[in-house]
Amino acid sequence: MTQTSIDVVGIGNAIVDVIARCDEAFLNEEALVKGTMALIDADRAEALYRMMGPGTEASGGSAGNTMAGIASLGGNGAYIGKVRDDLLGEVFRHDLTAQGVRFDTPPATVGPGTARCLILVTPDGQRTLNTYLGACVALGPDDIDPAIVGRAQVTYLEGYLFDPPLAQQAFRKAAEIAHGAGRKVALSLSDPFCVERHRAAFRDLVAGDVDILFANEVEICSLYETADFAVAAGAVRGHVAIAALTRVILAGGAEHRVAAAPVTRVVDSTGAGDLYAAGFLYGLTRGLPLPICGETGGLCAAEIISHVGARPERDLSELIATAGVFRLSL
Amino acid sequence: MTQTSIDVVGIGNAIVDVIARCDEAFLNEEALVKGTMALIDADRAEALYRMMGPGTEASGGSAGNTMAGIASLGGNGAYIGKVRDDLLGEVFRHDLTAQGVRFDTPPATVGPGTARCLILVTPDGQRTLNTYLGACVALGPDDIDPAIVGRAQVTYLEGYLFDPPLAQQAFRKAAEIAHGAGRKVALSLSDPFCVERHRAAFRDLVAGDVDILFANEVEICSLYETADFAVAAGAVRGHVAIAALTRVILAGGAEHRVAAAPVTRVVDSTGAGDLYAAGFLYGLTRGLPLPICGETGGLCAAEIISHVGARPERDLSELIATAGVFRLSL
Repeated sequence: MTQTSIDVVGIGNAIVDVIARCDEAFLNEEALVKGTMALIDADRAEALYRMMGPGTEASGGSAGNTMAGIASLGGNGAYIGKVRDDLLGEVFRHDLTAQGVRFDTPPATVGPGTARCLILVTPDGQRTLNTYLGACVALGPDDIDPAIVGRAQVTYLEGYLFDPPLAQQAFRKAAEIAHGAGRKVALSLSDPFCVERHRAAFRDLVAGDVDILFANEVEICSLYETADFAVAAGAVRGHVAIAALTRVILAGGAEHRVAAAPVTRVVDSTGAGDLYAAGFLYGLTRGLPLPICGETGGLCAAEIISHVGARPERDLSELIATAGVFRLSL
Repeated sequence: MTQTSIDVVGIGNAIVDVIARCDEAFLNEEALVKGTMALIDADRAEALYRMMGPGTEASGGSAGNTMAGIASLGGNGAYIGKVRDDLLGEVFRHDLTAQGVRFDTPPATVGPGTARCLILVTPDGQRTLNTYLGACVALGPDDIDPAIVGRAQVTYLEGYLFDPPLAQQAFRKAAEIAHGAGRKVALSLSDPFCVERHRAAFRDLVAGDVDILFANEVEICSLYETADFAVAAGAVRGHVAIAALTRVILAGGAEHRVAAAPVTRVVDSTGAGDLYAAGFLYGLTRGLPLPICGETGGLCAAEIISHVGARPERDLSELIATAGVFRLSL
């Protein structure tokens, strides 16, 4: 039986976003730290939802957003993550598969419902995330399908996946299978608080198992507990083949600087990092030079922050073709 | 006990929208008539959803959208409609009450789930609706709360509410209570196919029970089975005190023409008629002249079609203040 090749398989927390606007005062009253993700339990999720304004629901999850982006770019992607067999779980599955992403992980049939993230968007376009993990806690090593991971050029892990208890085992199993098949492993650090929660495990993973690391300046500095970006960059250089640090890409001895894509207005920053990773990995799996990968990531991120929601509204392959990024590289 | 007065109580099908983009070819393949609403059963809803692209979910329902608009304008509104005690029902209730609309109708505890409307948005911004009525079929005369209807200046009925079997009785009960309390009854014809399905009942209601009628040109012509707008306008004049026919408002012998509000780009026409009614009724319950009511309606409709979804994204009271509509009238 011939199997089609897979560009990227993403492993992450399968989450449906509930997005509402709020003012700065609300964040203060509820002691929410703007721009970060907080884990909340079911009771807090219910209480916070009651206080939130009218919302809209959309499939999300960091790696889920990245895979939707890769599919929209024309890439061949798969996803591994855990929903419950409930309505939100069906919505999550529908949206990912309708975008063209393969998603075969069986849903949980017992336990908490599909995860949701209450997203508060302030007038400056910044988003503050409150995640109730729900069924994500049921993801474990058994959900890692070797047939999928083994034939994906890149296995992409979101850092948030370190929060549910069994997922670290799933992570390590996936990395082992990927490397056993001569494939690459990518990790996104996701959020500075996430790095703080799992610093030792992340450092260990970055040193031993990660080929491609995604992080912004704050996250990489937090990982190496330094305020000096140059120090953090020096540390990560020795561990990973490629470190995509938003505006700087490090690869071996080389350092590439990438200009930010022009954005007219930040409506909602949710998904910016996820879509950067989508564009970057899409370029990488096509063998494009790293600066072009970075530029593609920047364009995808610019699309996502120009509207509410973390899944692309435009056909990204068209957007990239219009921008003429790939022409420059050929 | 002192009761606060209510500007408008809306009665309608309580529906959660599932919004996705599609191309013209998809509408043709699925024999969907652009710009209209089709009723579908549970099986068809499931099949159509499977074929649809990635979507977003948002509370909707024609009268629900209108009430959200009135609340956003600063009006005091209430809503009567039937959801099931399920997740979509909670979402619907949350979004309406979070907007400031009073919504006390108890949910159904048995029978089909909360209604959903599969909305396909074509590149021209037109929307094609496919409604699975679900729990809406459980709305009946017992759900009409005399205490609410009796103290609302206007009882607003969406035409779509004629589709579920028991709702006509609820309609008539509400009209009777409203008139008994010296209040006004408004009806929106909703959609030309809806008019065709219920023409006799609508004509009867318009002749006997309706004070304020909302309809566009196609709907009013369909109601009186004529291709000539002047003939339809002449017919309706004798029946209702005010007929708001989008660009023309008829009241007694007078005819007011209202210019369309400028719109830069139609992103999604869903909710245009609902928000026109919101602006119009908000003005009317404040005793503003009819041309100002029409202008306010036009501005609210322009906001709603500038983005995806049928509930206001901007604070409409601010939008109206900025436009300076009311200043002109004072």
